[in-house]
Amino acid sequence: MEPRISLITLGVTDLERAVRFYRDGLGFPLSSASVPGEVAFFRTGGAVLALWHRASLAADANLPPGGPGFGGIALAHNARSKEAVDAVMSQAQAAGGRILKPAHDTDWGGYSGYFADPDGHPWEVAWNPGFPFGPDGSLQLP
Amino acid sequence: MEPRISLITLGVTDLERAVRFYRDGLGFPLSSASVPGEVAFFRTGGAVLALWHRASLAADANLPPGGPGFGGIALAHNARSKEAVDAVMSQAQAAGGRILKPAHDTDWGGYSGYFADPDGHPWEVAWNPGFPFGPDGSLQLP
Repeated sequence: MEPRISLITLGVTDLERAVRFYRDGLGFPLSSASVPGEVAFFRTGGAVLALWHRASLAADANLPPGGPGFGGIALAHNARSKEAVDAVMSQAQAAGGRILKPAHDTDWGGYSGYFADPDGHPWEVAWNPGFPFGPDGSLQLP
Repeated sequence: MEPRISLITLGVTDLERAVRFYRDGLGFPLSSASVPGEVAFFRTGGAVLALWHRASLAADANLPPGGPGFGGIALAHNARSKEAVDAVMSQAQAAGGRILKPAHDTDWGGYSGYFADPDGHPWEVAWNPGFPFGPDGSLQLP
């Protein structure tokens, strides 16, 4: 596993309000990869910042939305192949992580799983053919 | 405000266990800026990953440790001067953010404040003279 946080997703209850805060208020550049009403991606130095409905994020990570293990944030590590996703999930489990959701083909054309670190912080491990890597390994969003 | 997440801090209940997971289990490179028993920093592509006692993190952000507004994670934006910290805090407040803790001189020799975004996600805004910036604006840890 490369030591990399590729993407940080904040679960939000009002996507438009959150987009206004980050795009208009703080001046973060909204990526054209965003889907209005669904998900917003911002290009930032290093990790991509994503905004997504909190309930969707909890469901995606297989966590109860109001439970103590879910603070409304998920970190993501993007890998370069499905095989690399499987390898990272195995590595995390061997290290004492808890598999929240085994890796599987997703409806957005990628491959993804979730594990929780020893304190319950959820990490997604994903291969996403629509998000290319830059020379330094960070995600390059349009 | 540069669109940048400089540092992600995970609140943990057992620092040694968390360090073993990330350093030994996942292979993340531990920075010599870490303070054993206190805080651990990992060099990652883009954002720095930090591990800190959950209660300390909540207290630092002026949030109740078990409250609904605290999921055990804080994002951080590092600015290049105290004045830049003040400017970002003002910008966040003007954008609808809630000031959790006004910026102030810290006991670690820096200057820091916290705001919450509209969903309550805490952000620290900090000037830290011990963490120099690299050419691309990311933090350069030893």
